[in-house]
Amino acid sequence: MKTRLLAAGLLLASQWISAQQMAGFTDQQATAQRQLEAAFDAQLSADSLDAWMKRMAAEPHWVGTPYGEANARWMKQQFESWGYQARIDTYQVLFPYPKVRLLEMTAPQTFKASLEAVPVEGDPYTQQGDALLPSYNAFSTDGDVEAELVFVNYGIPSDYEELEKMGIDVKGKIVIAKYYGSWRGIKPKLAAEKGAIGCIIYSDPEDDGYYRGEVYPEGAFKNATGVQRGSVMDMPLYPGDVLTPGYAATEKAKRLDRNQAPTITRIPVLPISYADAEPLLRALGGPVAPASWRGALPLTYQIGPGPARVRLKLEFDWKLVPAHNVIATLKGATNPDQWVIRGNHHDAWVHGAADPVSGMVALMAEARAVGLLAKKGQKPGRTLVYCAWDAEEPGLIGSTEWVEDHLEELKEKAVAYINTDGNGRGFLGAGGSHALQTLVAQVASEVPDPQTGVSIKERGAARNLVSGGDDQFALYALGSGSDYTPFIQHAGIASLNLGFGGENAGGEYHTIYDTYTHYKRFKDPEMAYGVALAKTAGRVVLRLANAEVLPLDFGPWQQTLEGYAKEVMETAENMRTTVAKHNSLVSRNAYSLAADPTKPGAAPKPRAAVPYLDFSPLQNAMASLKDAVGRTNLSAAQSLPRASRAQLNELLRMAEQQLTHPEGLPRRSWYKHQIYAPGFYTGYGVKTFPGVREAIEQENWEEARQQIERLATTLNGMTAHLERIQTILNQP
Amino acid sequence: MKTRLLAAGLLLASQWISAQQMAGFTDQQATAQRQLEAAFDAQLSADSLDAWMKRMAAEPHWVGTPYGEANARWMKQQFESWGYQARIDTYQVLFPYPKVRLLEMTAPQTFKASLEAVPVEGDPYTQQGDALLPSYNAFSTDGDVEAELVFVNYGIPSDYEELEKMGIDVKGKIVIAKYYGSWRGIKPKLAAEKGAIGCIIYSDPEDDGYYRGEVYPEGAFKNATGVQRGSVMDMPLYPGDVLTPGYAATEKAKRLDRNQAPTITRIPVLPISYADAEPLLRALGGPVAPASWRGALPLTYQIGPGPARVRLKLEFDWKLVPAHNVIATLKGATNPDQWVIRGNHHDAWVHGAADPVSGMVALMAEARAVGLLAKKGQKPGRTLVYCAWDAEEPGLIGSTEWVEDHLEELKEKAVAYINTDGNGRGFLGAGGSHALQTLVAQVASEVPDPQTGVSIKERGAARNLVSGGDDQFALYALGSGSDYTPFIQHAGIASLNLGFGGENAGGEYHTIYDTYTHYKRFKDPEMAYGVALAKTAGRVVLRLANAEVLPLDFGPWQQTLEGYAKEVMETAENMRTTVAKHNSLVSRNAYSLAADPTKPGAAPKPRAAVPYLDFSPLQNAMASLKDAVGRTNLSAAQSLPRASRAQLNELLRMAEQQLTHPEGLPRRSWYKHQIYAPGFYTGYGVKTFPGVREAIEQENWEEARQQIERLATTLNGMTAHLERIQTILNQP
Repeated sequence: MKTRLLAAGLLLASQWISAQQMAGFTDQQATAQRQLEAAFDAQLSADSLDAWMKRMAAEPHWVGTPYGEANARWMKQQFESWGYQARIDTYQVLFPYPKVRLLEMTAPQTFKASLEAVPVEGDPYTQQGDALLPSYNAFSTDGDVEAELVFVNYGIPSDYEELEKMGIDVKGKIVIAKYYGSWRGIKPKLAAEKGAIGCIIYSDPEDDGYYRGEVYPEGAFKNATGVQRGSVMDMPLYPGDVLTPGYAATEKAKRLDRNQAPTITRIPVLPISYADAEPLLRALGGPVAPASWRGALPLTYQIGPGPARVRLKLEFDWKLVPAHNVIATLKGATNPDQWVIRGNHHDAWVHGAADPVSGMVALMAEARAVGLLAKKGQKPGRTLVYCAWDAEEPGLIGSTEWVEDHLEELKEKAVAYINTDGNGRGFLGAGGSHALQTLVAQVASEVPDPQTGVSIKERGAARNLVSGGDDQFALYALGSGSDYTPFIQHAGIASLNLGFGGENAGGEYHTIYDTYTHYKRFKDPEMAYGVALAKTAGRVVLRLANAEVLPLDFGPWQQTLEGYAKEVMETAENMRTTVAKHNSLVSRNAYSLAADPTKPGAAPKPRAAVPYLDFSPLQNAMASLKDAVGRTNLSAAQSLPRASRAQLNELLRMAEQQLTHPEGLPRRSWYKHQIYAPGFYTGYGVKTFPGVREAIEQENWEEARQQIERLATTLNGMTAHLERIQTILNQP
Repeated sequence: MKTRLLAAGLLLASQWISAQQMAGFTDQQATAQRQLEAAFDAQLSADSLDAWMKRMAAEPHWVGTPYGEANARWMKQQFESWGYQARIDTYQVLFPYPKVRLLEMTAPQTFKASLEAVPVEGDPYTQQGDALLPSYNAFSTDGDVEAELVFVNYGIPSDYEELEKMGIDVKGKIVIAKYYGSWRGIKPKLAAEKGAIGCIIYSDPEDDGYYRGEVYPEGAFKNATGVQRGSVMDMPLYPGDVLTPGYAATEKAKRLDRNQAPTITRIPVLPISYADAEPLLRALGGPVAPASWRGALPLTYQIGPGPARVRLKLEFDWKLVPAHNVIATLKGATNPDQWVIRGNHHDAWVHGAADPVSGMVALMAEARAVGLLAKKGQKPGRTLVYCAWDAEEPGLIGSTEWVEDHLEELKEKAVAYINTDGNGRGFLGAGGSHALQTLVAQVASEVPDPQTGVSIKERGAARNLVSGGDDQFALYALGSGSDYTPFIQHAGIASLNLGFGGENAGGEYHTIYDTYTHYKRFKDPEMAYGVALAKTAGRVVLRLANAEVLPLDFGPWQQTLEGYAKEVMETAENMRTTVAKHNSLVSRNAYSLAADPTKPGAAPKPRAAVPYLDFSPLQNAMASLKDAVGRTNLSAAQSLPRASRAQLNELLRMAEQQLTHPEGLPRRSWYKHQIYAPGFYTGYGVKTFPGVREAIEQENWEEARQQIERLATTLNGMTAHLERIQTILNQP
């Protein structure tokens, strides 16, 4: 079966090669490019990825560690050996190391949380004892608090609405929240806003443990002692070094007082295992949690408050540590001042075989192959900048400081940024600027899936179809969670995030179990998807580097924006219907009558009605944009005179920057992009048309009106930019 | 808050009394009837319900026990003391008592299931030791089997489809299925059809244990050792005594050979607790179960087969035992040959405080109040027949034998059958013949809810609104699960099933924990909803007994049928779309491409396309029916001459019987009703328009065509019957 599929796949691939267009290339150029890509593929070796992973993930290497620095130096040498000019750009960034971690239950029984994941047989990396970074949440504040405990489900806004309905207040309490449901940093942020004085986050076995599959070391999933580390820095406000918002954390940079740093949490927060969480949850009384809140521990999930009381004491060693970004450049043969930037982080919470090394080694294989081809004379047209970021884990720090440091140069030179991070067996996931959707779709239709032989695009389409969707390739919109954030959301550089997954599930994320041993058993045993990632990202890089005309396509971009416009208008409409329904039920006393009188609960109050908003500025801007996109036909642009092509390419390069606004988003001016942002209350989760959407969601109608105007202005700017492009296209 | 609500409720109630119509009564008659009902209410006492429950549930009383017989005799005396003519109608029915129950794991470890629920502190009833009926499934066949184990989720048809996709066959295996998802008898029936040689059913704590709330004795829910007993007789084929299908199990009745009895399971089946299930499930290997299959035990749910092997040995003492139905009659003053029948069962699996005693004592309070009023001269117009059924638990045996025994007389005399069963705190649930919907809605608008003071109709509407529904009162359609089945589905007598619940959740159902102690703590501590049930069912009985014109309303009935017609047509249409989509995915190879190649699975095969069915006979019949119902105006029928009224009432009484067909449903001729039936593969779950709907679901297109014709014929018969009614209504 598999053999037959492979044969069919190869047949299809050869058909495509003759038939398919390649954005930005003439047919003749496309043939040459495909030959280059075949030569590129031939240089990729799974064995190299394997050996590099084994080396880089041999010891823990979080920012500031000797092994992290050694990895940076070793990568620099590698890049140099492949013909790159390489350097290490170092920043001095604040990083907290946990000195004191204490969590104990003081009533109704006493219990002290162990806070230790056990080493497991068969995985020597887990047996490195004190060399392993203790589990904690970076950028929790110091603190020593004791209070009654309250279970708050995932600790996201809808959970606090539910608690309010039940008449439960977390003021002065310590909350315990499950991981997942949002980016982790939202949990202490919201808890503090609601008046809680401490926050515990645990991995419930339903989301991340035996419920999902056999646990490590028998299986891939989280055992009872595993703890997910992670940053809780308030990244939706700004990522990067907490003391240098918006500018580089150079040695002599002026720094905020740490006590004033707005992205450090206001209350102490600590992550724990489900073994440590179980006695705490079991000791809670109060109402039984709603069904959707309950996890897979063998107990009745109750909310409290109390009778469980806990004490949480945390102290950190707050130090400036060096973050070492490796920057390797291969100068472009024809357009050296146009940069295609490719990055992956190299720091890990512990060994980080999957996160980030699996993506890092694919990037290296790609850089090596490109370097070898360049040595043989096949140099890229534009300059390639390969980056290995440090300090991504504590808050996208290495990449953010570097972007802030080089902001003006990047705006003048950057064509695009292509990011990867952890990788594994499965399906291509691709997010990014939708003007790049056609490019990625074309690449995905030419890279074979290692397991089935059909293209990775076809395999993804099959999964979408089986899940009830259609077979159209689409980029997801970028929120946050990896190093593309400063590039797209701060600098306005067209960006992509690429990776394979879906058949690599496990519970190792940010634990001591994310090791080479675990990776080879459960993630991508043959490194086949590492090679597939190198082929995919490599093609994207090489086409961006060599295309006669930059391979942007505004058609899919505009259609995607139509969807966002429809969504935000529907959001307002749905809120109006929901509020009207709610108020009618309140006036009929239906909530009280439907409630069990023996259970605690507060009668819901009427809500302010949702006004009709004037969306016409947005609708008019969208109409003009549609018209402008329709008139922007790039298909014959390769035949323009050289000087016009250069002008055109410069305008195309600048297109994404038109979507930023210098003032940024309300209350978080670091985020300049007006189409994509991480959600203020979702964290990694994207909010498209964020200014308008979040104002509506927060029921801030005046701001919604302002943001509709601003978005319309931004889109009209893009329309004007497209008209400049048309002027060049229409030159006689 | 509560006080204010109560006051508001009383105010509303008095407003209704003047304003509201009462179906079948003139306004003047309605006023008298409401005075009667107020006098009736005044006779109801929660203390009596409490005392009777304590008495009846003091000892286990399944069919054939001395305590069951004592209860019957005591009830007979009670009815007699209230002025009824009472008798005990006894049938000799087959009932298996468990002699040998053995379940052990033989590999990869050994483990012997305890099969014992523990007595709990504070509940003396649970401490009666050997007097408690051992846990088992009645009408499991004898057997001694050993095989590898397979976890089959709920063991319903969709689960076997999923197993097939995974390439897992249960042939020659023993299956373990969770309770719920269907009536329990479906599980061994389907398992046997699929080739399994044994079946274990367990209560997963997600559905029925600590996941839902604290467990007994701390809370109401099922502790680790509780076991749900219950019948697995193939009731969708026919209920009642397995040896006397379709006729009464009198002492001298000709009986089937037990080995030929089609409603005894083909494979041995045993229910167990989650404490006993856990080691078995933990010992399973094979693929991880789909997320929706997993329960709340602290383990990775895997499917097997094996390596767990189990041995299941069961032997029963198969005996004829006497089933004692108590039949108490109060002769009607004006229409003694028209019977309003009211029933509840009295047998229990163990003590049965909730099931069935809580409903039984409400019936008794009602009968007592009616009897006292009759003694004071306020006799019912029609004859009341109060019934306490025996042997409901093993398979609706007492009621079924009685209906089969009195079938012709019932067809000639029965006006309606009103059933109750277990009852508790919460909301009115009312199912039944939709021609009675207006009657029940009117009653529900006049009975106050004990906790809020608004009417039970308004409280139910509030719950529906809060759950996203509308505020319209509707009867649910009757499937099976209590003693209405022989009345409505076999005899074609208009029936209702009434009960309160929704705030009485617990895990005591069919266990040793369904005791007076448990009931008083968790179900209806003040017996307030027992009194509310007596008020509700009592009003329904008294209005049916006294109405000048039988209070049927065909408008809501016809609208409900419109919904069923739409549903069955949509079912065919949706199947067509689903099959076409499936086949397109198969032809594109999408399932194989989307599947993880490292996991077992069978490539799905193309399915036969769904033909377009000719629904026009049904559509034409529905159109005629709508027209006929529109012309059947009963609102002025009270003013008809007495003789015409008598003719009219006789036609109204016979209306429900028009909906039966003498040949019954395909392959189960016992089920005569063409609108409502329990599903052949759902058990209790109703199938409306069952002949057509099940033929479509089984993709039996020829039968679907036949059943559309038959349904149309049946509905046309009803149209003709309505025309006879019109003839009387239009008499000058």
